[in-house]
Amino acid sequence: MNNTSPNQGTSAETSASEKPFTGLIIREKEPENLEFPFSALSSAITPNEQFFVRSHFPVPKADPKTWQLKIEGCGEPAFELSYEKLRSMPSRTVSMVMECAGNSRIFLSPKVMGLQWELGAVGNAEWTGVPLADVLKRAGVKSGAMEVVLEGADRGEIKKEPASPGKISYARSIPLAKAMSPEVILAYQMNGEDISPAHGYPLRAIVPGHYGMASVKWLNRILTLDQPFRGYWQTSDYTYWNQHNGMPIQLLPVSEVEVKAEISRPALYEAVPANSVYRMFGAAWTGESEIAKVEVSVDGAKTWQTAQLLGDSVKYAWRLWEYHWRTPVQPGRHTVMARATDTRGRTQPMERDTHRGTYMITHVQPIEVEVRNVRGTGSTDSYAI
Amino acid sequence: MNNTSPNQGTSAETSASEKPFTGLIIREKEPENLEFPFSALSSAITPNEQFFVRSHFPVPKADPKTWQLKIEGCGEPAFELSYEKLRSMPSRTVSMVMECAGNSRIFLSPKVMGLQWELGAVGNAEWTGVPLADVLKRAGVKSGAMEVVLEGADRGEIKKEPASPGKISYARSIPLAKAMSPEVILAYQMNGEDISPAHGYPLRAIVPGHYGMASVKWLNRILTLDQPFRGYWQTSDYTYWNQHNGMPIQLLPVSEVEVKAEISRPALYEAVPANSVYRMFGAAWTGESEIAKVEVSVDGAKTWQTAQLLGDSVKYAWRLWEYHWRTPVQPGRHTVMARATDTRGRTQPMERDTHRGTYMITHVQPIEVEVRNVRGTGSTDSYAI
Repeated sequence: MNNTSPNQGTSAETSASEKPFTGLIIREKEPENLEFPFSALSSAITPNEQFFVRSHFPVPKADPKTWQLKIEGCGEPAFELSYEKLRSMPSRTVSMVMECAGNSRIFLSPKVMGLQWELGAVGNAEWTGVPLADVLKRAGVKSGAMEVVLEGADRGEIKKEPASPGKISYARSIPLAKAMSPEVILAYQMNGEDISPAHGYPLRAIVPGHYGMASVKWLNRILTLDQPFRGYWQTSDYTYWNQHNGMPIQLLPVSEVEVKAEISRPALYEAVPANSVYRMFGAAWTGESEIAKVEVSVDGAKTWQTAQLLGDSVKYAWRLWEYHWRTPVQPGRHTVMARATDTRGRTQPMERDTHRGTYMITHVQPIEVEVRNVRGTGSTDSYAI
Repeated sequence: MNNTSPNQGTSAETSASEKPFTGLIIREKEPENLEFPFSALSSAITPNEQFFVRSHFPVPKADPKTWQLKIEGCGEPAFELSYEKLRSMPSRTVSMVMECAGNSRIFLSPKVMGLQWELGAVGNAEWTGVPLADVLKRAGVKSGAMEVVLEGADRGEIKKEPASPGKISYARSIPLAKAMSPEVILAYQMNGEDISPAHGYPLRAIVPGHYGMASVKWLNRILTLDQPFRGYWQTSDYTYWNQHNGMPIQLLPVSEVEVKAEISRPALYEAVPANSVYRMFGAAWTGESEIAKVEVSVDGAKTWQTAQLLGDSVKYAWRLWEYHWRTPVQPGRHTVMARATDTRGRTQPMERDTHRGTYMITHVQPIEVEVRNVRGTGSTDSYAI
């Protein structure tokens, strides 16, 4: 094997300057919904300017001088914290893969409503802020509390039915036990910079292990509840079908992230040099667990080979992986796939489970590529044997 | 006043034979959704063949010989009752107004999705069956139970989003306290006859005080739950917006019936004789309360007059009412309205509250009529002064 290829090492990091900047893909202009072009993946940390944006409503204006975080609930008197006060509290930094619950929706068949995300409604960043548990302890949590509602300053109308009675605020709840876990923070920094307006300035919740909809942006109110919260994004949207223990079927709120691997390279329909070693590359992640293995198939799921996991495992962050594929001698169409398994033994399914509705899209995606006789392409992802 | 008019008495009942039979209006053929032509109202009891039909899915086949009611929940072993056994248990008869939660939807502006009911997705019948409380006590209710799910044998697919994963069973829950109330029964008879297939043969739940969706037809399973049920018709459909005590807005399941009066006669755009006494006639009902008064306005809500309540008040049944309107001397367009108040002091609103979405449509409906110089119409609803 030729060891001179710059990309065949196991280093998880490639400095951003080595790759030309690739812009975000506009999925919706107003409100802004932007996708990371996943084939541009080059490092464990997604640069802020490439991080996907998911917004339900326009970005609300925020002045840190007057901004207040209100903590209410269960009859306790309201408790307020200023931005300055929050920034003076002990902080921690957590690395978290954030995936929109509707990521990969474009691959669903038949087509469904909703933003048509491809592979890039996902990113991994380091978030810095105050543990939610510290704030809740300071405010006082009444006995009997079971859920914590996170409400943003973003407001707007729901036009489809059930149509909202005018503007409503985005809000989601998480179980109290999760809210009290140390990894859940109220973040004011993203990758060492103040969070930008599109990502929730001045404050957003960071709920590692849950899909992105729980990491409420522009957070300005927290409520503890003694019963399940029945907000719009908890009952009508961000739900999936669940039937267990002989219960009648129910619509439960989407919450914990499912195990998933995505292939960054090759991209769909990429031309791959024949009779070469091609470096397949991607990321894998899961919820309240860690990635145990990533497998790759280059023969349409007949056989699976183990990919190399890169870097160290960091709970709640994604894990990059690579696999050196010895491409066929004969040109033609080929299908490559990747699937991940986590330390709880969950593996990505091959088939779509329709119980998941339009969310949690983790069934293995076949990526078709064109194997070609190409000489001297200068590709950094393959080399002649 | 001329006392010879056959309809000006205070008797709540007019025998069905006095009125020509008026058929149901087809709102949907498959599944069958049929409306009572409300202007044909003539008695406190709606005849079975005129009772509106609301179905989500096709009528399921049922054989009383093999039919079983399963009672499950909270870890208790399942308990089964045959149709024969149920019919041998002590029974009671309850009079109940049943209104579809979407009744009067056609009057909403702007137009919304859903069956376009006018005034007749409502009826009043006497139901005979076994108190649900007796069945639950026999089956055993575990401590911690808080809701009772009523599931029907009717199954089908939800096509709009969230699209169901194949066929699902219709199911709704009621609070345990309501389920244990004596008025809630498992009915096998409707107005003294075995319930017909369209109305739930062999057994349907009867939940007086709640909108019709709680009175589950073709009932074959009952489950007690120790947490709120999150079925489709509890979270995504049959919900309304609620915001109270500074809580973020929530989607709650439609449940208790709101106070409402409807005008049977005059019908919309009916020609009303000028300079006569016209007998306005209708019905009024409410939820966990009783009708205190019905008021009528014949001048576009400038002034309100008290209507005469007919018969006796029967909790959970509707109350017929009449008002002798001295019609104007001059011909022209006139607007009549009715509004009810219940013993809890709830009065129908004049304006639609958009929090109610596409359900609980009780704001006062103006009925436009044409006052005309007519002689010798032979109408039984008016007489010359």
